[in-house]
Amino acid sequence: MKLFSVQDKSILITGATGALGSVAARALADAGARLTLAGGNAAALRELGIDDAAVVTRRPETPADAQAMVEAAVAKHGRLDGMLVASGMNHVAPITEMAVEDYDKVMAANARGAWLVCQAAGRVLLEQGTGGSVVLVSSVRGSLGHPAGYSAYCPSKGATDLLAKSLAAEWGPDRIRVNALAPTVFRSEVTEWMFADDEKGRQTREAMFARIPLRRFAEPDDFVGALIYLLSDASSFFTGQVMYLDGGYTAC
Amino acid sequence: MKLFSVQDKSILITGATGALGSVAARALADAGARLTLAGGNAAALRELGIDDAAVVTRRPETPADAQAMVEAAVAKHGRLDGMLVASGMNHVAPITEMAVEDYDKVMAANARGAWLVCQAAGRVLLEQGTGGSVVLVSSVRGSLGHPAGYSAYCPSKGATDLLAKSLAAEWGPDRIRVNALAPTVFRSEVTEWMFADDEKGRQTREAMFARIPLRRFAEPDDFVGALIYLLSDASSFFTGQVMYLDGGYTAC
Amino acid sequence: MKLFSVQDKSILITGATGALGSVAARALADAGARLTLAGGNAAALRELGIDDAAVVTRRPETPADAQAMVEAAVAKHGRLDGMLVASGMNHVAPITEMAVEDYDKVMAANARGAWLVCQAAGRVLLEQGTGGSVVLVSSVRGSLGHPAGYSAYCPSKGATDLLAKSLAAEWGPDRIRVNALAPTVFRSEVTEWMFADDEKGRQTREAMFARIPLRRFAEPDDFVGALIYLLSDASSFFTGQVMYLDGGYTAC
Amino acid sequence: MKLFSVQDKSILITGATGALGSVAARALADAGARLTLAGGNAAALRELGIDDAAVVTRRPETPADAQAMVEAAVAKHGRLDGMLVASGMNHVAPITEMAVEDYDKVMAANARGAWLVCQAAGRVLLEQGTGGSVVLVSSVRGSLGHPAGYSAYCPSKGATDLLAKSLAAEWGPDRIRVNALAPTVFRSEVTEWMFADDEKGRQTREAMFARIPLRRFAEPDDFVGALIYLLSDASSFFTGQVMYLDGGYTAC
Repeated sequence: MKLFSVQDKSILITGATGALGSVAARALADAGARLTLAGGNAAALRELGIDDAAVVTRRPETPADAQAMVEAAVAKHGRLDGMLVASGMNHVAPITEMAVEDYDKVMAANARGAWLVCQAAGRVLLEQGTGGSVVLVSSVRGSLGHPAGYSAYCPSKGATDLLAKSLAAEWGPDRIRVNALAPTVFRSEVTEWMFADDEKGRQTREAMFARIPLRRFAEPDDFVGALIYLLSDASSFFTGQVMYLDGGYTAC
Repeated sequence: MKLFSVQDKSILITGATGALGSVAARALADAGARLTLAGGNAAALRELGIDDAAVVTRRPETPADAQAMVEAAVAKHGRLDGMLVASGMNHVAPITEMAVEDYDKVMAANARGAWLVCQAAGRVLLEQGTGGSVVLVSSVRGSLGHPAGYSAYCPSKGATDLLAKSLAAEWGPDRIRVNALAPTVFRSEVTEWMFADDEKGRQTREAMFARIPLRRFAEPDDFVGALIYLLSDASSFFTGQVMYLDGGYTAC
Repeated sequence: MKLFSVQDKSILITGATGALGSVAARALADAGARLTLAGGNAAALRELGIDDAAVVTRRPETPADAQAMVEAAVAKHGRLDGMLVASGMNHVAPITEMAVEDYDKVMAANARGAWLVCQAAGRVLLEQGTGGSVVLVSSVRGSLGHPAGYSAYCPSKGATDLLAKSLAAEWGPDRIRVNALAPTVFRSEVTEWMFADDEKGRQTREAMFARIPLRRFAEPDDFVGALIYLLSDASSFFTGQVMYLDGGYTAC
Repeated sequence: MKLFSVQDKSILITGATGALGSVAARALADAGARLTLAGGNAAALRELGIDDAAVVTRRPETPADAQAMVEAAVAKHGRLDGMLVASGMNHVAPITEMAVEDYDKVMAANARGAWLVCQAAGRVLLEQGTGGSVVLVSSVRGSLGHPAGYSAYCPSKGATDLLAKSLAAEWGPDRIRVNALAPTVFRSEVTEWMFADDEKGRQTREAMFARIPLRRFAEPDDFVGALIYLLSDASSFFTGQVMYLDGGYTAC
C-alpha cells in the first residue's frame, strides 16, 4: 500500500476548520503528512489539535494571503507537495432578489480564492521542479444547475472545475496534477437538519434519496479515500478530472 | 418556417459591436427582430447601421448598466423577449505571471457581466409572464482546459455554462429558457492572423485542423442558425444546454 | 429563413411510422423535402400519406436492408442528402431477470441498426462528395443511467451517441455531419398513460416534473425545430453533438 | 491505510492475461486479494503464476461462460466481492469498409461480454446482500470519437460507460457499486510500436503528447492505484462514474 502513502508530504489545507477541511486535516495527519492549516478562525484552528502543523489565520482573499500560506508551509516543512482548497461559501437566493455583493462574495470565496492559492502554490511547485498534486473542492453544482437560487454557487463551482482543467493543462508538463472533488450533500453544521430524525429531515431525505442510488448522504469520511488517492502517487497519471463523490447522483 | 420566426421579437444584444454581436445584430434585424444594441463604443454602435434599434452605450459593469439596457429595450419596443450576451474578453498569461487584476477583469467581463444582465432581464421577463429566451456566449473553454495561460478565461466560461444551467432550472417553470453557444476559434479581428495565407497562419491552421473534423474555423455566419433556433419557438423544449459550434472539436 | 431550408433535400427516415418518425415525415414533407420512408409495417407506412415519398418496408436488420433503403432513395430522388434514424426499441427488466435475447434485440434495433444504415448511407454520401447530414435518435439515457431495468437501453443509447461522435470525426473532412437528438419522455402510444388525467398519470407527472424545469413532457412537435436545424445548412459547423430535447432535465 | 485494503476480498478478473488484466492480477494478489482469473488462453493463465487463484479458461461469450466464472469464484473462495472486466478487443476500419461481422465481434467482446458477466456476478452479489464493487474497462473512446475507423470501438465503449451508469442506478440500493476505468493509450503488445525509439514511434508520440498534459502514455501500473481505490472501501460513496486515466487528455 506504499502506493497510497502521503507520509512526510507537505500539504497545505485552506478552509481547514470546515466540515471537509477538518476531516482532511485529521486523516492526512494520521497518515503522516506534514500539514499547513489555513482558516479564518484562530480558535477553531487551534482546536483541530494537529501537532506539528503550521497554522495561518487567513482566508485566501488577496495575493498576500495566498503567499503567506505557501510561505508558512515552506518555512515549517521545507517544501510543498500538495494542497487541498477546502475554503468556500454559498449564498442562496433567486437571482432577481440577490444583491450583487452576495454574488461577488460567493465568486470571491470559491473561484477567486482557489485561483489565488493556486497561483501562490504553483510558483513554489514549479520552482521545486518535483511535481505536485492540487485538489480543489467543487460540487455536483459545478456541472448541474439547481432550481433554488444557485446563480452564484453553480457558476463559482463551474469556474472551479475549469480552473482544475486549465491548470492541469498548463502544469502537466511539470508533473503538477490538478483535480477536483465534487460532493453532493454531506454532513456538516449547515446540513445537519437534513440528517435529523424529524418530519422535515425525513421528507427531505426521502425526496433526495430517490435520486441517489446509494440511498444516503455523504459522511466527511467518504472523502478521505479519494483525497488520499489524489494526493499520493497512486494517481500519478490522473489530472484535470472532477471526481463526483455523490453516491451516484450524477450518474442517473 | 414560421417555427423559426423572430419577427417582432424584442431582443437585447450586449457586446453588439463585437465579431459575434455584430453578425447577430444584422441577421436578427434582417429577420425582423426589434433590437436593442449595447456596447462600449458609441461610434461602432452607430456604424452597425441598424434602423429602429435602441442603442445603449454601456458595458454590463454594474447593476445600473444592466438595468439601463433592459429599460431601453422596454422603452423602445414595449417589452423584452430575448437576449444575446455577446460581451466579454480574454487575457492570456501563465497563472504564475498573471496579475490578479487581469483575472478579475476577465471574470467581471465574462461571468459577472452575464450575471448582471440576466438579473435585469429576468426581472422584466418574469414580470411579463410570457416566457423568453436568453442566449449566453460561452466557448469550448467552458468545458476544456487550455495549456497556454487560460486560468482566467476557462473558469469564466465554466461559470457562464453554469449560469445557463442554474437559470434554466430557476426560470424553467416560467418558460424562460437559457442556453449557451460555445464556439471554438472563429474569424474576428483577434483571430485574423490564423486565417492569413502566410507561413504562421498555415502552420497554425494545420495543427488545429487536425482536431477539427470539418477542417475549418468558424465564420460568424455559422452562429446565425443556432442563434435563431435558440431565440425562436423552434427550441421551445430546449433549455440549460451548451451548443458547441466547433466543427466537431469537442467530439473527438 | 433560407438558412433553414430543406426544400428538395433527399432525406431517408427509418422507423418512419413511429412517434418521432411520423412527425418528422410530415414536417419534412411540409417543408418540401423529398422523402424515403422505411419501416416494418407496410400499412402504417401507407397511412402516413406522404405523396411522392419512396417507401421501403424494411427495418435495418441486415446490410441488405440498409442498402435497400438507401438505394430506394437514390432511385426515387436521384441522390441522398440526409437521414433520420428513428427506428429502435426498449425492453425493461432488472439485468438479473433479463434474457440475453432481449438484451440482444435492444442492442440490435438501436445500436446495430443505426450502424448499418450509417454504413449504407455513408457509402452514397461519400461517393456523391457533396456533404450531408445524419441525425440519430438517442435519449437522455445515452448519458444517464436509470434505476428501473435499463441495462440494455442505456448502453444502446450510449453506443448511439458514440456512433455519432465517431462518424462525425471520420466523415468531417467530407462535410458529412452526424449528430444525435436526445429526448426525455415524449408523447407516444407507449407513454400515453403518463399524460392521462388519472391518479397514476398525475402522480407520475408530479414526480418527473420536479426534475424537468419546463414542467412538461415533450410533444413530438418539439423535435421538429431541432431536426430541421440539423438537416439544413443552418447547422453547417455543428457535428458530433448530442442535443438534449428534455426541458432542462439533464441541466439540473 | 486500512481504507484501501483488498485483503481477502474475492475478486474475479476477466481478460486476466491481457495488458491490464495481468497487471491487475499481480497487484491484487500482492495486496492479498483472493482471485479468480478468466481468459481464453490456458497457457497464458498458468504463466501468470498466481497461487491460490481459481482459473477459468473462458471468455464471456455466453451466459454459461459468465456463470462458470462466477461459480468458480464462489467454489474456490466461498463468495464474490468484486470484479474487473478487462476482456475486450478492437477492430479498426472505416465504416464503409468494415464487415458487419467485425462490428459484431467488437460489440460482443466489449459491450455484451461485460453485460453477461455483470448479470452473473450481480445474481451472486445481490443474493449475498453485502454489497460489492464492479469495475469495467472503458476508454476515452467511450466519450470521444476518433477519426480513424472507430465506429465499432467507440460505440462499444459508450455502451460500457452506460452499463456502469445503469447498473450503478439499479444496484445502488444494495450497495453494489459499478464504475469504469477509461485509459488512453497504455503500453501493451498492441501499442509497443508507439513507445519505440525509432522515427515512427517518435513522430507518433510527438503528435499525441501535444494533447496529453503529462506528456507520456500510461504504464499498466498507472491503473493499479485507481483499481484498488475502486475495489476497496475507500470508494464506498463513489459509483456510476468513469475515471479517465489519461494524463489529462480529456481535460483539454
